[in-house]
Amino acid sequence: MTLIDEIKKRTVHVDASIEDMLPVTHPEELYKASRYLVDAGGKRLRPAVLILAAEAVGSTLESVLPAAVAVELVHNFTLIHDDIMDKDDVRRGMPAVHMKWGEAGAILAGDTLYSKAFEILSRVENEPERILKCMDVLSRTCTEICEGQWLDMDFERRDRVTESEYLEMVEKKTSVLYAAAAKIGGLLGGASDEVAEALSEYGRLIGIGFQMYDDVLDMITPQEVLGKVRGSDLKEGKYTLIVIDAFRKGVELEVFGRGSATQDETENAVKILYECGSIDFVQNLAISYIEEGKAKLDALEDCPEKDLLLQIADYMISRNY
Amino acid sequence: MTLIDEIKKRTVHVDASIEDMLPVTHPEELYKASRYLVDAGGKRLRPAVLILAAEAVGSTLESVLPAAVAVELVHNFTLIHDDIMDKDDVRRGMPAVHMKWGEAGAILAGDTLYSKAFEILSRVENEPERILKCMDVLSRTCTEICEGQWLDMDFERRDRVTESEYLEMVEKKTSVLYAAAAKIGGLLGGASDEVAEALSEYGRLIGIGFQMYDDVLDMITPQEVLGKVRGSDLKEGKYTLIVIDAFRKGVELEVFGRGSATQDETENAVKILYECGSIDFVQNLAISYIEEGKAKLDALEDCPEKDLLLQIADYMISRNY
Repeated sequence: MTLIDEIKKRTVHVDASIEDMLPVTHPEELYKASRYLVDAGGKRLRPAVLILAAEAVGSTLESVLPAAVAVELVHNFTLIHDDIMDKDDVRRGMPAVHMKWGEAGAILAGDTLYSKAFEILSRVENEPERILKCMDVLSRTCTEICEGQWLDMDFERRDRVTESEYLEMVEKKTSVLYAAAAKIGGLLGGASDEVAEALSEYGRLIGIGFQMYDDVLDMITPQEVLGKVRGSDLKEGKYTLIVIDAFRKGVELEVFGRGSATQDETENAVKILYECGSIDFVQNLAISYIEEGKAKLDALEDCPEKDLLLQIADYMISRNY
Repeated sequence: MTLIDEIKKRTVHVDASIEDMLPVTHPEELYKASRYLVDAGGKRLRPAVLILAAEAVGSTLESVLPAAVAVELVHNFTLIHDDIMDKDDVRRGMPAVHMKWGEAGAILAGDTLYSKAFEILSRVENEPERILKCMDVLSRTCTEICEGQWLDMDFERRDRVTESEYLEMVEKKTSVLYAAAAKIGGLLGGASDEVAEALSEYGRLIGIGFQMYDDVLDMITPQEVLGKVRGSDLKEGKYTLIVIDAFRKGVELEVFGRGSATQDETENAVKILYECGSIDFVQNLAISYIEEGKAKLDALEDCPEKDLLLQIADYMISRNY
């Protein structure tokens, strides 16, 4: 069985649980708007990490399913609100939620997913102390995601962003949810605090690698594969580490922040970023984060699920989109 | 000591805890935006109800303070997002959050308060089972608030809204948070399920009365007292029960939904609503909800805090703004 099959084998239950735990009920349009992006797919990597972490410490998929759903809903909530804030009109190859239901509808669809996530997590059957710990992890994570998105938006107003500022932003905006997924899986599975912490670090590190590689993919993947306009980060003036590295090398990027740049101009900018070594720099840094993350799993006993978690780490920097 | 003094005596601790539990930290502007409306005042009725409910069943203010803060933050989160959605630019006599930090900033400030509320609630010192029950109450409540706001927005697109639809909207949008405040206070205070349920019903019923009276106040209170333009509901085409009642009586309201209506035209519409009895109808209905809510407190032993909860119920329909 391939990694994708192993993930699917588990996330098919996540999908069924979403149907169950977030039914399209009255008021129907609100729940349709809330479900729209969730149902549009996505790789379900976060719930997969959560489930595998639980299994790796001796628990079962069934006992952590609501938690896996909660983490996926939080992820989708952040996408919906981010797309409004970033004025990204296409997501997963489809119109963003705010394009279909308006900004007000999208704000509310996101808010609904947010509260549903906590509602569903509180419904896990487990020791109350453990569930409470998970609630604490998830709520702190959500706060950090907000901080990360704020930093990201703040970067747009600035002339210069440093590598360490970028790293803080990526850690908060993206990687903490992977950390939370792995840690919650561990905690609900009965892991010791030490193992739960190692799982959290695994998630954090591969999450950073994931986002760095995502920034690379945004520049080099054709639109029909990416599901959104390629190089959009560049034209939007987003400070990815690729751009930060290029700027500190003194490279000039005329298209940066120029929304009207043509496809040809963007292609040319990508070529420049290749030639100055910035794309390779970030790709290599992503690889080192992934390796560091994998090393954290030494805290786990050898088992097929540990192996799958290692494979997910590698997948982060080998996927095509 | 007057009721206001008794409330203040308690909420001064809520204010201090907010300073403590939601410090203005990095990234500073995000936390300033999150604190802005919270610090702008408000009557702190929800935390007061929560604290009094806990005290009435034998607990102390200190032991429920984080929960009281959590409920106040949820309230402010909903105000921030509602003001974006409803395009209300003034709140508590000051520019709304989105007027100062933009819509993206306000979305994020609200999201931050949302997660902070759950973070803070999970930090209450109490039996894990009880805290978990409160988490469940608060998250379900947040979901219902979203449903209520959706219904409210949906009404704007409709030609006709019935009394029962209005009641569902008000119950979800406003009264469930009063219900949650009273119930959480009771639960953390160690109340039986029966008493906690009675407290919840008290909150729900006085919350409905509160909102109905609020709709009355919106029409009859001068701008300098209300802190926002008087009659704005009417001009915005909001289906309050006053309007629903007038319409079913066949009254014509030419200013309804006409944002350009002058002050004189609005005054005249209010006069019509008085004369047709719709304002009295809603005011009397509000009174009956308040009385029903007060009766629920028969489940409590007599004590000074029960008396204060009864006074709060009366205050809901006697306040000037």
